[in-house]
Amino acid sequence: MNFNCMVAQSGGPTAAINASLAGVIQGVIDSSCYDTVYGSINGIQGVIGNNFLNLSKKASTDSFIERLTATPAMYLGSCRFRLPDFQDDEELYRIIFDRFAEYNIGAFFYIGGNDSMDTVAKLSAYAEKINSSIKIAGIPKTIDNDLVITDHTPGFGSACKYLASSIREIAYDTYIYALPSLTIIEIMGRDAGWLTAASALARNDFSPAPHLIYLPEVPFSTERFIEDIKKVQEKYCNIIVAVSEGIRDENGNYLSATTAAADKFGHAQLSGTGKCLEHIVKERLSIKVRSIELNVLQRCAGHLSSKTDLDESFALGRAAVGFTADGLTGFMATINRLSNTPYTTEISHAPVSEIANLAKDVPLEWITPEGNDVTREAIEYIKPLIVGEMPCYTKEGVVDYLDISHLFHTADNS
Amino acid sequence: MNFNCMVAQSGGPTAAINASLAGVIQGVIDSSCYDTVYGSINGIQGVIGNNFLNLSKKASTDSFIERLTATPAMYLGSCRFRLPDFQDDEELYRIIFDRFAEYNIGAFFYIGGNDSMDTVAKLSAYAEKINSSIKIAGIPKTIDNDLVITDHTPGFGSACKYLASSIREIAYDTYIYALPSLTIIEIMGRDAGWLTAASALARNDFSPAPHLIYLPEVPFSTERFIEDIKKVQEKYCNIIVAVSEGIRDENGNYLSATTAAADKFGHAQLSGTGKCLEHIVKERLSIKVRSIELNVLQRCAGHLSSKTDLDESFALGRAAVGFTADGLTGFMATINRLSNTPYTTEISHAPVSEIANLAKDVPLEWITPEGNDVTREAIEYIKPLIVGEMPCYTKEGVVDYLDISHLFHTADNS
Repeated sequence: MNFNCMVAQSGGPTAAINASLAGVIQGVIDSSCYDTVYGSINGIQGVIGNNFLNLSKKASTDSFIERLTATPAMYLGSCRFRLPDFQDDEELYRIIFDRFAEYNIGAFFYIGGNDSMDTVAKLSAYAEKINSSIKIAGIPKTIDNDLVITDHTPGFGSACKYLASSIREIAYDTYIYALPSLTIIEIMGRDAGWLTAASALARNDFSPAPHLIYLPEVPFSTERFIEDIKKVQEKYCNIIVAVSEGIRDENGNYLSATTAAADKFGHAQLSGTGKCLEHIVKERLSIKVRSIELNVLQRCAGHLSSKTDLDESFALGRAAVGFTADGLTGFMATINRLSNTPYTTEISHAPVSEIANLAKDVPLEWITPEGNDVTREAIEYIKPLIVGEMPCYTKEGVVDYLDISHLFHTADNS
Repeated sequence: MNFNCMVAQSGGPTAAINASLAGVIQGVIDSSCYDTVYGSINGIQGVIGNNFLNLSKKASTDSFIERLTATPAMYLGSCRFRLPDFQDDEELYRIIFDRFAEYNIGAFFYIGGNDSMDTVAKLSAYAEKINSSIKIAGIPKTIDNDLVITDHTPGFGSACKYLASSIREIAYDTYIYALPSLTIIEIMGRDAGWLTAASALARNDFSPAPHLIYLPEVPFSTERFIEDIKKVQEKYCNIIVAVSEGIRDENGNYLSATTAAADKFGHAQLSGTGKCLEHIVKERLSIKVRSIELNVLQRCAGHLSSKTDLDESFALGRAAVGFTADGLTGFMATINRLSNTPYTTEISHAPVSEIANLAKDVPLEWITPEGNDVTREAIEYIKPLIVGEMPCYTKEGVVDYLDISHLFHTADNS
């Protein structure tokens, strides 16, 4: 009898994580080594709590794999759960590996970011300790693109495509008035500026927006910011500024907690980075200013996902199944970029212990010396990741995705 | 020699206003009464300042009409300019009508909302006064859907489609965690709740989000709001609330200026309606709460526009040309709904003096007695307006629209 597989998702949602799940399911269907694939609900907590979906059965219904690939957020739900070190507390590990035995699991796949790779590293170390033959594999996912070794992460390309398109549309919105205006767009990414860098892709032959881009990798100076705007004002009427939510001053303090606006009104939480800059500009310059906080649609707008991103995410999931069938464990599937033009990649793997809990920033040489833009190299790096459109499923005019009400019951019972 | 036409756009941008412009251009092309159509840059100000595009020439290039229809914001730019009464100040009127004579204009079309219809009314009254044969026509446009007589307004359907789709995606984003959460989504519409009502279209067979909907047409009570949430919490884990930016208390005060949160920190402007409710919930309930202010993409997200909306917008523009050729003036083109199922409409017209400066609220009988949801009638009214998708033009992965850099120069020179 063949082994079965188990798969779970963890961390924040993306438009691409279900494509990796679809890839895992397809990999198991295509594999001669594995029979059934079970989906654990709400990450590793589903394994602990014995809460599963039979995904092989689901996949037997028409177009399930196709629809799953195009569904954003997480079909299996998520968790924010950090396993203790097994040296300190072995009990959860015993429960998990007993469950694996109960379901005759040969390989466990965890799709997620930094924290999820920590879980993969711990489970594979424990498997080694108890001489278990169960293979433990990580599949990357994060819009933040901050995992090391892999060239980029699933979910990042779709988030970039949404950002570039949305910022271009916002620019069009501002261009209509012949009155000077400044629009500050706050973008996700508390530590790494990858997503904010992608705002540069909103530019085209005639639209220079965003005119200024600020990443968290270099210290932010309010004085330089004001000078930058004044300089852009000499040439442009409607100015767009893209700014990471995570920009910090020279002392490493987040802007939202250190500015005049926040100090004056006494409650830093009221004011995000964009709102904070808006107030600074209002005090210092006479220009109509507005701030826009791009919301969770950055990560979950399935209606504007990148085909390149979803194809790669699917391929990573599928390849991970093959890697475990070949005997590999304790790894994360990775993307190696072979060339930019034409864009070519290969899928590989790396020890998860070399990835977990580490983070990758935007290289400083990809940020202009003035600290208010990104270089051609940064743009060339991101550009291929947003190419291609997915079919947008709609029903009665509204974007339409797979039923995820199996997550509701979990929620009610939790 | 035939007369020429002139067209301009005014007010806030929408995803559909350029479709009406395309309709006007097509109407002139198809007409045997008119020769060239000129586009005035930045609304009526382009007429005053002698700033035009030759749209007939533009339309001779390949696929211009098609691409214009799908381009959001305003191809001709906008203005916020209110003409004085000609009884008080006739000079601007003389300049405008001299310009009309200079360009041999037989009909002037103004695409916009309430304020723009005021301009149409004033210009047509002045034309009558000076015995000018120039026809003055209004073409409706506003995401707010608050114009009277016409069944609905161009731009509204696309905004509703974007809202319903985005709220469904945000709901998917929240469903992934098995932890109670409340997400408050603030929606545009300071006076009328039409757009907020459209949030109900985010629901489907299994997803009940938004669970609560608050419109500005009924007074908002913080106490009832807290009770409403408690009741929803009994059944649902991840709750979505859709709220109009314009909700007011029993005394007619906007929420953002009257709450504990705003009072405490002393600066009402810091806090929008959603942020304000977020703080109230944080103080009163123990549930993870977040507020999302849907930004200008509500009105300018061309990548998710409604085909029904764009088709109707185009048809209104085209029909308006025909109405003026038939001798009509001082009117606004209107949409009459003939039936919901199947959805059928006809295009008609009404005296602009009966429309300008008036506003249409959501009927109170379309709001539930509890004041926290809309009725089936409201949903049936909005539903057909969001149906159908437009081709989404992209270039290198980013949504791609017509070059509008002709607006930049205006901006620089203004």
